[in-house]
Amino acid sequence: MEKLNVGILLFDDVEVLDFAGPFEVFSRTRLEAGVESRRSEDTAPFHVFTVARSPETVVATGGLRVTPHCDFAGAPHIDLLVVSGGFGTRRLLDDEPTLEWIRRVAESARKTTSVCTGSLLLARAGLLQGRRATTHWGALDVLRGIDPTITVVRDRRVVVDEIVTSAGVSAGIDMAFAVVEETFGREVAEETARYIDYPRSPI
Amino acid sequence: MEKLNVGILLFDDVEVLDFAGPFEVFSRTRLEAGVESRRSEDTAPFHVFTVARSPETVVATGGLRVTPHCDFAGAPHIDLLVVSGGFGTRRLLDDEPTLEWIRRVAESARKTTSVCTGSLLLARAGLLQGRRATTHWGALDVLRGIDPTITVVRDRRVVVDEIVTSAGVSAGIDMAFAVVEETFGREVAEETARYIDYPRSPI
Repeated sequence: MEKLNVGILLFDDVEVLDFAGPFEVFSRTRLEAGVESRRSEDTAPFHVFTVARSPETVVATGGLRVTPHCDFAGAPHIDLLVVSGGFGTRRLLDDEPTLEWIRRVAESARKTTSVCTGSLLLARAGLLQGRRATTHWGALDVLRGIDPTITVVRDRRVVVDEIVTSAGVSAGIDMAFAVVEETFGREVAEETARYIDYPRSPI
Repeated sequence: MEKLNVGILLFDDVEVLDFAGPFEVFSRTRLEAGVESRRSEDTAPFHVFTVARSPETVVATGGLRVTPHCDFAGAPHIDLLVVSGGFGTRRLLDDEPTLEWIRRVAESARKTTSVCTGSLLLARAGLLQGRRATTHWGALDVLRGIDPTITVVRDRRVVVDEIVTSAGVSAGIDMAFAVVEETFGREVAEETARYIDYPRSPI
């Protein structure tokens, strides 16, 4: 079966759960229910991989060491882009190669999403102009400061506009399930949540 | 300040959220509230690292590539052991070096915990004899099969006995918060949950 390519952006000081939550949800989604279907990729509708500006191992928040599957130059076509957050986003706000990559991928992706302060990068790349969006509660004013045309939503875990943004850290799990539900239906999303024992929050 | 060493066990086909959830919670816990305290380790009560049998990069479920901080031989003293789960536990059920390492660490640790099917390894190591414990819903009967003296708890996300076990995948996040709360109090646990925007579930 043809799979949708999910590219998750990594960088130094990326918050662990920001990328690991969506990685878990998308990589464990199956169109066939149950434990057994998770032993193979046969009914997996997503192919999930991590991408970073360079191929070296990334040191995430807390020191977790993750090696990206590909760098910007080597990444395959991305259908679904996940821009993770974390303190590391701050030094990327002026990193033109990263912003340019995000713009380029978002233009051809079927869907662009962010977790936590990943939305600051989307805002800086100009992708949230005139849109509704959210971020970690500690960065709501920063988001508005980057682009005052954004309608900053302060009381939702997930904000679905043309781009899907989510609130802090663990809200990325709910964002991923919202995308699974929109793409493959409520039953697939609920069954995957049950598989990972996750009580979904109202978004 | 003196920190508690948290060692999280990795292996090939470890489930991503099983180790990433507790890693996130323990590594982001601070004794001082707010966003700023998370920019340094000054008020972090835990020092969190990953451990594997050998130092090579581990390929987790879904293909995430994580490089452990140390191997069994090189690991510092562990105060709090987290045994992750995932399909990879099955081939470790007869891996004596792993079981022996778990036994040895658990003996000198202040607390031993597991996420998901990590409890199968604890059972196989003989550490759950006569105790209450849980695991992923798909493995409850396997747990009982490994050691019939275990009282298998089927309706709790976290089971606190001398060893703390948790249900499937995301329940490891609630397990970690339960340990934070027991060790540093309710306020620290609640504030850290708020920092990562996580609505704790009743355990």
